[in-house]
Amino acid sequence: MMTRPVAAIILAAGKGTRMKSDLHKVLHPIAGRPMLLHLIDAVTALSPERMVVVTGAGREQVEGAVTPLGVRTAVQAEQLGTGHAVAQAAAALDGFVGDILILYGDVPLVETRTMRRMLDRLGQDDAPAAVVLGFRPDDAGAYGRVIADMDGRIDRMVEFKDADAEERAVTLCNSGLMAVRSEDLFGLLARVGNDNAAGEYYLPDIVMLAAADGRRSAVIETGAAEVAGVNSRAELAGVEGDWQRRRRARAMADGVTLIAPDTVWFAHDTVVGRDVVIEPHVVFGPGVQVADGVTIHAFSHLEGATVASGADIGPYARLRPGADVRERARVGNFVEMKKAILGPGAKANHLTYLGDAEVGAGANIGAGTITCNYDGFFKYRTVIGEGAFIGSNSALVAPVTIGAGAIVGAGAVVTSDVEADALALVRAERSTKPGWAKRFREMMLGRKAAKKTGE
Amino acid sequence: MMTRPVAAIILAAGKGTRMKSDLHKVLHPIAGRPMLLHLIDAVTALSPERMVVVTGAGREQVEGAVTPLGVRTAVQAEQLGTGHAVAQAAAALDGFVGDILILYGDVPLVETRTMRRMLDRLGQDDAPAAVVLGFRPDDAGAYGRVIADMDGRIDRMVEFKDADAEERAVTLCNSGLMAVRSEDLFGLLARVGNDNAAGEYYLPDIVMLAAADGRRSAVIETGAAEVAGVNSRAELAGVEGDWQRRRRARAMADGVTLIAPDTVWFAHDTVVGRDVVIEPHVVFGPGVQVADGVTIHAFSHLEGATVASGADIGPYARLRPGADVRERARVGNFVEMKKAILGPGAKANHLTYLGDAEVGAGANIGAGTITCNYDGFFKYRTVIGEGAFIGSNSALVAPVTIGAGAIVGAGAVVTSDVEADALALVRAERSTKPGWAKRFREMMLGRKAAKKTGE
Amino acid sequence: MMTRPVAAIILAAGKGTRMKSDLHKVLHPIAGRPMLLHLIDAVTALSPERMVVVTGAGREQVEGAVTPLGVRTAVQAEQLGTGHAVAQAAAALDGFVGDILILYGDVPLVETRTMRRMLDRLGQDDAPAAVVLGFRPDDAGAYGRVIADMDGRIDRMVEFKDADAEERAVTLCNSGLMAVRSEDLFGLLARVGNDNAAGEYYLPDIVMLAAADGRRSAVIETGAAEVAGVNSRAELAGVEGDWQRRRRARAMADGVTLIAPDTVWFAHDTVVGRDVVIEPHVVFGPGVQVADGVTIHAFSHLEGATVASGADIGPYARLRPGADVRERARVGNFVEMKKAILGPGAKANHLTYLGDAEVGAGANIGAGTITCNYDGFFKYRTVIGEGAFIGSNSALVAPVTIGAGAIVGAGAVVTSDVEADALALVRAERSTKPGWAKRFREMMLGRKAAKKTGE
Repeated sequence: MMTRPVAAIILAAGKGTRMKSDLHKVLHPIAGRPMLLHLIDAVTALSPERMVVVTGAGREQVEGAVTPLGVRTAVQAEQLGTGHAVAQAAAALDGFVGDILILYGDVPLVETRTMRRMLDRLGQDDAPAAVVLGFRPDDAGAYGRVIADMDGRIDRMVEFKDADAEERAVTLCNSGLMAVRSEDLFGLLARVGNDNAAGEYYLPDIVMLAAADGRRSAVIETGAAEVAGVNSRAELAGVEGDWQRRRRARAMADGVTLIAPDTVWFAHDTVVGRDVVIEPHVVFGPGVQVADGVTIHAFSHLEGATVASGADIGPYARLRPGADVRERARVGNFVEMKKAILGPGAKANHLTYLGDAEVGAGANIGAGTITCNYDGFFKYRTVIGEGAFIGSNSALVAPVTIGAGAIVGAGAVVTSDVEADALALVRAERSTKPGWAKRFREMMLGRKAAKKTGE
Repeated sequence: MMTRPVAAIILAAGKGTRMKSDLHKVLHPIAGRPMLLHLIDAVTALSPERMVVVTGAGREQVEGAVTPLGVRTAVQAEQLGTGHAVAQAAAALDGFVGDILILYGDVPLVETRTMRRMLDRLGQDDAPAAVVLGFRPDDAGAYGRVIADMDGRIDRMVEFKDADAEERAVTLCNSGLMAVRSEDLFGLLARVGNDNAAGEYYLPDIVMLAAADGRRSAVIETGAAEVAGVNSRAELAGVEGDWQRRRRARAMADGVTLIAPDTVWFAHDTVVGRDVVIEPHVVFGPGVQVADGVTIHAFSHLEGATVASGADIGPYARLRPGADVRERARVGNFVEMKKAILGPGAKANHLTYLGDAEVGAGANIGAGTITCNYDGFFKYRTVIGEGAFIGSNSALVAPVTIGAGAIVGAGAVVTSDVEADALALVRAERSTKPGWAKRFREMMLGRKAAKKTGE
Repeated sequence: MMTRPVAAIILAAGKGTRMKSDLHKVLHPIAGRPMLLHLIDAVTALSPERMVVVTGAGREQVEGAVTPLGVRTAVQAEQLGTGHAVAQAAAALDGFVGDILILYGDVPLVETRTMRRMLDRLGQDDAPAAVVLGFRPDDAGAYGRVIADMDGRIDRMVEFKDADAEERAVTLCNSGLMAVRSEDLFGLLARVGNDNAAGEYYLPDIVMLAAADGRRSAVIETGAAEVAGVNSRAELAGVEGDWQRRRRARAMADGVTLIAPDTVWFAHDTVVGRDVVIEPHVVFGPGVQVADGVTIHAFSHLEGATVASGADIGPYARLRPGADVRERARVGNFVEMKKAILGPGAKANHLTYLGDAEVGAGANIGAGTITCNYDGFFKYRTVIGEGAFIGSNSALVAPVTIGAGAIVGAGAVVTSDVEADALALVRAERSTKPGWAKRFREMMLGRKAAKKTGE
């Protein structure tokens, strides 16, 4: 079977009114990535010659998202049906000869292998005019039915409202997704009429038009979850939940322990190694890579972070973009890292902020340490050498370097460099007033009593 | 149809032994509000003339909760059945003429519209003696059955244990809730006997007594979840879960993104605007209002807080009562606010406590900043002006005012006001001991080795 | 019925390849305890004379876990089937006369009472040769079937692949667990052959061999969840989830409120008192005891901690091993305790680390307080007296004692003892530069502008 060039038309003109959002429906994220980009990623894996997104309401948002990816756009100014929407892509596909996938921006989780199956079926010897992607939902409800033989050759497609009892008993439904040759698509579309109650041009009509020419179309099936559409935030949550369930299952199959799978939320690109243990209630934003043998304790939140093997994270660790935790390092509770390296075996165990910082191997960052990386205008770097010891409640005012093996005494505000192996203390004298606390207490208790009696 | 005055009798005399609690069963909260008050709220929406709660065991607790709301109480000293319990409300309803709803404090989520449907049915032309609220559980089990015709006219009501096979096959069950006219109720109750195994006076008997007088009663139906009762903590959790599922669905329908709906817990009065995004693992206590376009990151906990549009909250933000986050302000990780205003565009990004404070627009609160609002006896206010910059690890000892545009250097303890546009530094001299850290390390490593060899 | 001595053989030789782990399958934890030890605990409750774990791949790990418990091990060098595995325990059971339970390290949640039922059945008058533990899964799938009469007397046991349609219709399946007399077991095993496709020695064959001798075996039934096996991390999560569901149900039955049961994760040994309220998203590690009337707020993480009655924990409290929170004490948000006592009524409300510390009754630990317990080599203790008041952002450098009733001013670094009732201030002088902040701002805004215009 010859491989022909591939193009994809993605319909994204719908308003998404039920989302009640200023954000275009197809840009709402799933697993931290706009749903439309999930679909574009899946198409991209086919190395398509062209992709065209058909936009309508809110098209500036959609164009802004896809144009940087080299994806073309076409505008459907009026909402005149799916057939009309696809026809708007004609100019953008001018000169393209090959197989065209018709997809929907709000049916975002269709997999590359399913698209390839559609294309393969289109290329088979019986040369179907179109390949329709069918599915069998738990409740076929009001979906259009696909009436086909055992080999998937379509006899007819019927809208639910036009279907008789026998047709309604058919469980194979039309997802709307199709593969059609460029040589066929726009010619067939030109013949689609709008003589129906809604006055719309329906894409599935091309199947019957081809049949009238004596050309059969074919249906292939996929699971209902893969073609789930998003028209509301509840459906968005449903698709997200389904994505997460599959991702968690994959993590566990790959050798990750999830004590409480339902409480762990991955991002679209999370990478997790073998023998990683993830405790309950952990959230991954985009851009995280976790190596083998890492433990991520409960209530941790990672985004844009790299964690090397044997590191220990959390509970309550917050790794922000640029956090880079090296081998066997430890990030403890209520610790935030941003654009910061924590060297091999180094520890930041409690109540710390490491921003724009570099911590050497084996260094110990005391509880309550803050890197003061911002002066209200610019950000500055803190460098802490190998084996240094930063006392608790210290403030390191960047730019500043603490040399290897140096010790900073507790409570210091360090505004200039500390040389290697030195001890730096920044600490005021103590004054003590014996008995003062007792007198103060007695005075204040008197005032409290006075307040209560209304004096 | 004339609208007649309405009263409600709420039975709450049961001990709730299975709760194993010192707190009265009907005071256990659902969505942060005692279950009895959910029910009273629903009745209140009917503008009733009177409400009477019938108490028994632990009645002081119940009286303490409802008396401030203007709800009357009556005491059922002995537990002699539901008919007897309702009869105890007679004195409290003396002089009342109208329609009476009979409700149960441990069936807390009955909706106002259902109560109104019961009252409407009572007022219809066929003048039923009583209106019974029926439901069809998944498993009818041992519930009493309601034998009625297609129009809901009751033929008879049978306890499960008295029912024959045909009656047990009926799926319509008696919830126990009723609407009865004041003119009928107490007269009928007076005729109810206790000639049964338990020696109790059963409320449903009034239906058969009225029938004996030639007056039919009627049943209307509602969903089983609405009349779910709470007799154990497991059932409490079940009702809570059901409430939360409905609340989450409503939020999503209203334009709120819940990435992980099952991990977000609302309170009874949470208000959330459009295009709010709530990440996984967020908990709302009572009294929270969130405006449009806010993002609430994972692991945030809000109670009694107001969040204005475009603000960014968390992760790990803890907003306590009186937290008031203004437009586009940002509350970051491990930050606690209590009785504190964070002005428009102001930021408190890390490891901070703002209590009894007012932060001006655009101010920047450095990591580790603490408002020292408490001296062990009284609380004091901190005021931070517009555009001020508070360096990291600062302690602001209230009462204190930091002027607009002022800068407080990192690590300062500020005990008196800082004028606008000034720089305030509170910082000790640094002393450095070159090589000290190295010598210390060698000494301590020696000690460690000595310890290990048992010297 | 005489009670005979009991022994148990636990098979744990399987590689657990599907776990994809360097940790032996039977050592993966459930509820914070290795699954094998759950099983050993359940056997231990029977006061067995001996326990033998049969190891194979990764046996060093298994031996390391069980040898300290006085459990014997035997090695199955080659994986030649369950019959062969059991036979390897013969030497370790030499001289033992009594009843032998045959269990599986990866079927970890079998309960003591079920084991006892198996032993009791073995001892009944009809003297079965073996007692097989059967179960009825939702989907019997490819499990071996047990063909038995109404009284549980086994006619035959058939592998699924050898079963005819009638046998496959039987829903009673073989869990693999058995009880057999020592007098019978090894003699029967010696007669088991390996004339089958896999060339393995199958334990269930002893049932048919005994039958050939005219001795019937018996089956007793248990629930499918109890005999769920763990062969993958997904199954591990499934067993964990099931364990947690039962534990939560027990907590609620015992008078604990779980607002969101599915979000609370217990450890194997968690003890929780009556009228304890646990908010959503709470995680217990091993070794926690919580007394009556405690509230544990959301996002708290407890491990090895003791919490006395009326205490208030969290949200975001992290109690590590040795945390000891006394009556009515309060541990607030972003507070970590480790080997630390918080006395009756004492408070550590915000952003604090208490390590190796002892806080007296009624003391108040200000926000941002850190006990500096570590010098990089050793740990030292901090003692805070009754009623002391530690100002915010203080660093207490251990070893140090703050006397009863003393006050430490905010921002202090305390390096030596403070006597009772004294006030200790460690605070630098303030220097103020009027107008400096304004000039700085103007300069920096200039730089920012310059950067933007590319100068």
